[in-house]
Amino acid sequence: MNEHVKPVELRKAFRLVNHGPTVLLSARNGSVDNVMAVAWCCGLDIDPPKLTVVVDTIAHTRSLIESSGVFVVQVPTVAQLELTREVGSRTLYKEPDKLRNSGVSICEMAGHDLPFVEGCSAWLACRLISEPHIQDAYDLFIAEVIAAWADDRVFRDGHWHFETAGPEWRSLHHVAGGHFYAIGEAFPADSNGG
Amino acid sequence: MNEHVKPVELRKAFRLVNHGPTVLLSARNGSVDNVMAVAWCCGLDIDPPKLTVVVDTIAHTRSLIESSGVFVVQVPTVAQLELTREVGSRTLYKEPDKLRNSGVSICEMAGHDLPFVEGCSAWLACRLISEPHIQDAYDLFIAEVIAAWADDRVFRDGHWHFETAGPEWRSLHHVAGGHFYAIGEAFPADSNGG
Repeated sequence: MNEHVKPVELRKAFRLVNHGPTVLLSARNGSVDNVMAVAWCCGLDIDPPKLTVVVDTIAHTRSLIESSGVFVVQVPTVAQLELTREVGSRTLYKEPDKLRNSGVSICEMAGHDLPFVEGCSAWLACRLISEPHIQDAYDLFIAEVIAAWADDRVFRDGHWHFETAGPEWRSLHHVAGGHFYAIGEAFPADSNGG
Repeated sequence: MNEHVKPVELRKAFRLVNHGPTVLLSARNGSVDNVMAVAWCCGLDIDPPKLTVVVDTIAHTRSLIESSGVFVVQVPTVAQLELTREVGSRTLYKEPDKLRNSGVSICEMAGHDLPFVEGCSAWLACRLISEPHIQDAYDLFIAEVIAAWADDRVFRDGHWHFETAGPEWRSLHHVAGGHFYAIGEAFPADSNGG
């Protein structure tokens, strides 16, 4: 990772996904890495931080998560719009070169045997909390966030700075069928929208 | 409700929350209505539509949901920023006039004994799916969406139209401490962000 990637305090890690971005979910099992796009990822607790993520049985990444018990949730940017669509529509089951063909570069973080996607704005390393009933019944996975980082050009001092970073840093919010919105105007705590 | 509020097909109801807005959660038990703001609400399935919502035990609205088994998830707008902050910081346990003091007007929908918040952009009537273990362990509730509506000035033909509606219609996305972002620029399915 480059010099802009800085650790985020765990008790503030929920802020990285609290505004509801579509995320990239990545996992590793041995020599196999995969990355998928997920709109259904959500905060669950603040301290210790937990989150939920919905992963269909048809997703190859699910098998990696179930094998390894760990995964990364990362926040892609407007600059990664095509990458996000590509990893969301291709499957490693049919395309062994999915990641290269989607423009994904993987990098490593010391102490974590996990695939981190380069160029995102934030990364949350997660450990699965086993809840077999809801995994089977709803494809719903619960995890604890065990480490977090962000790029200080867009998230620093515990806050997003979308309004001063370039537009290419904005988070992506999927509606359906490849139609996204970027995050927009800021309303600080002392502002009003009326 | 006014003449702009139109039913949304159930199989497209997930699109109302797929982009990760902070929502208003409302519920009723007998003569008692309450409304709270919730950032942790997330899609879970498309057809039939399901969603998850995280509701702390300290929230009065939780007791209403547990009693009645039904609730409404609605999507507030930039015009409702102050209302959203107010219902998120006041509690009915200490303030019986919370809703009036927060500027909330409640309206009814035929066939649903539930409190709908006027002025939102979308409404999802939900029926709790009882999962006592995850409710107790994680404050996590699973529900099926049984009916949905949207204001056709901002959502029609199965699509959000934030880019052509006025800025006061944009959804709100909470980070922390009353700091929100509105949803922003659109990237249709054939666009790229590079």
